[in-house]
Amino acid sequence: MPPLRTALLQSSGIPGSVAENLKVLDDAASNAAATGARLLICPEMFLTGYAIGDQVPVLAEPADGPGARSVAEIAARHGIAVMYGYPERDGERIFNSAQLIGPGGESLANYRKTHLFGCFEQQWFTPGEQPVVQAELGGIRIGMLICYDVEFPENVRAHALAGTDLLLVPTAQMHPFQFVAESLVPVRAFESQMYIAYVNRTGPEGEFEFVGLSCLASPDGAVRTRAGRGEELVIGEVDPGLLSASRETNPYLRDRRPGLYTSLV
Amino acid sequence: MPPLRTALLQSSGIPGSVAENLKVLDDAASNAAATGARLLICPEMFLTGYAIGDQVPVLAEPADGPGARSVAEIAARHGIAVMYGYPERDGERIFNSAQLIGPGGESLANYRKTHLFGCFEQQWFTPGEQPVVQAELGGIRIGMLICYDVEFPENVRAHALAGTDLLLVPTAQMHPFQFVAESLVPVRAFESQMYIAYVNRTGPEGEFEFVGLSCLASPDGAVRTRAGRGEELVIGEVDPGLLSASRETNPYLRDRRPGLYTSLV
Repeated sequence: MPPLRTALLQSSGIPGSVAENLKVLDDAASNAAATGARLLICPEMFLTGYAIGDQVPVLAEPADGPGARSVAEIAARHGIAVMYGYPERDGERIFNSAQLIGPGGESLANYRKTHLFGCFEQQWFTPGEQPVVQAELGGIRIGMLICYDVEFPENVRAHALAGTDLLLVPTAQMHPFQFVAESLVPVRAFESQMYIAYVNRTGPEGEFEFVGLSCLASPDGAVRTRAGRGEELVIGEVDPGLLSASRETNPYLRDRRPGLYTSLV
Repeated sequence: MPPLRTALLQSSGIPGSVAENLKVLDDAASNAAATGARLLICPEMFLTGYAIGDQVPVLAEPADGPGARSVAEIAARHGIAVMYGYPERDGERIFNSAQLIGPGGESLANYRKTHLFGCFEQQWFTPGEQPVVQAELGGIRIGMLICYDVEFPENVRAHALAGTDLLLVPTAQMHPFQFVAESLVPVRAFESQMYIAYVNRTGPEGEFEFVGLSCLASPDGAVRTRAGRGEELVIGEVDPGLLSASRETNPYLRDRRPGLYTSLV
């Protein structure tokens, strides 16, 4: 199976302006597709901005809302799958969500963040209840988490046990927690034997200072591509051959002893 | 509560010679106690050597065997707690174990490795069945794992949920897996909010090449002390104040959602 070339869009766009963010996305999709990438991943809440305060309920939209339709049009026009974060409205409830749109513009999966971080998120969002959401893309099983979710090894392990090959993690990772981007994400990829694409916002936004450092980590513990602190589109390869070989060498999933882990649930 | 000064003995001793290893331990206990350390940790299978092949059943002894009595005498003479790895005989079964001896020479806890690594260990040892073994030392709750055990986030999480403050991990960590010593151990300390003392063998031994790099990792993700590749005694502080402050800042244990983790067991 050929590698899946994957593009990570490290950008905060223009917080509060969906129209401007769609333009940034359109440009990035064009540039990513020109490199041969078949998947483009945007940060958490990319559609609207993250530190948008009381604009959350104003800008929230359903999974098939106007923003989703615009993203679908961009994906189809460039023939590239796109994952983007957005505030999802479902009746009175708002979720911190991410949606994967296929290269034909169809929705492949929608995930609602299960582990909300800090006061801002807990004020505005309802936590999701489905820990593992997956889709297929180019023969690779894709999984989805958002930001704080990946810091809990349980969430990544649940994906590994469900067969996730490549975990997409839009994030809004802020100072002083760059240890997560630098060290924790590669360790998650290693301990649960999968690729992880961790795609961050960058620079100051409201009360936050995002740290960039987006990366594609592989199951051998290496970092295949790593962004700096600024706006950047970085490209990496997800190689099913490397994944199979790594799982053969690192038998964590076979050597687990679930009967000993009952205190975790 | 005052910090617990902790000494990590990175040494392979003389594989196959219990008498020589007890001399190395005696010297290390003397040097550690002279720095004010109240706890000395030795690597996996330190009493006998690791790559001892068919000498495993010959050198295995009960938890209160002659080697244990010698370690107890050393601990009491220098007034320092000692954790050491050894092959434990219990009837026909042999476990890969580690025992914590208190500063008065009394046994505080004995742990049997639950996750055996590779063909050598699976040939000789029976896996332990008790995931969490703890003891108290100077007001700090001590937990115990051995080598491969710590690579499974479930095992460390179980300790966190049981209140472990300082996890002692004798190890026999070999090339090419130094990623574990360098990156995985600090991430474990951070994600489960505890100190971890990871104490390795060093240099070639039989078919193995041990990588040293022993460390004391703190719950803020920092490495408080780190050994090189050779024989070395390194000292670090386990600070209950830092631990409390870190747990306040990093609410992983409060933010867990156990109801979502049922696939892990």
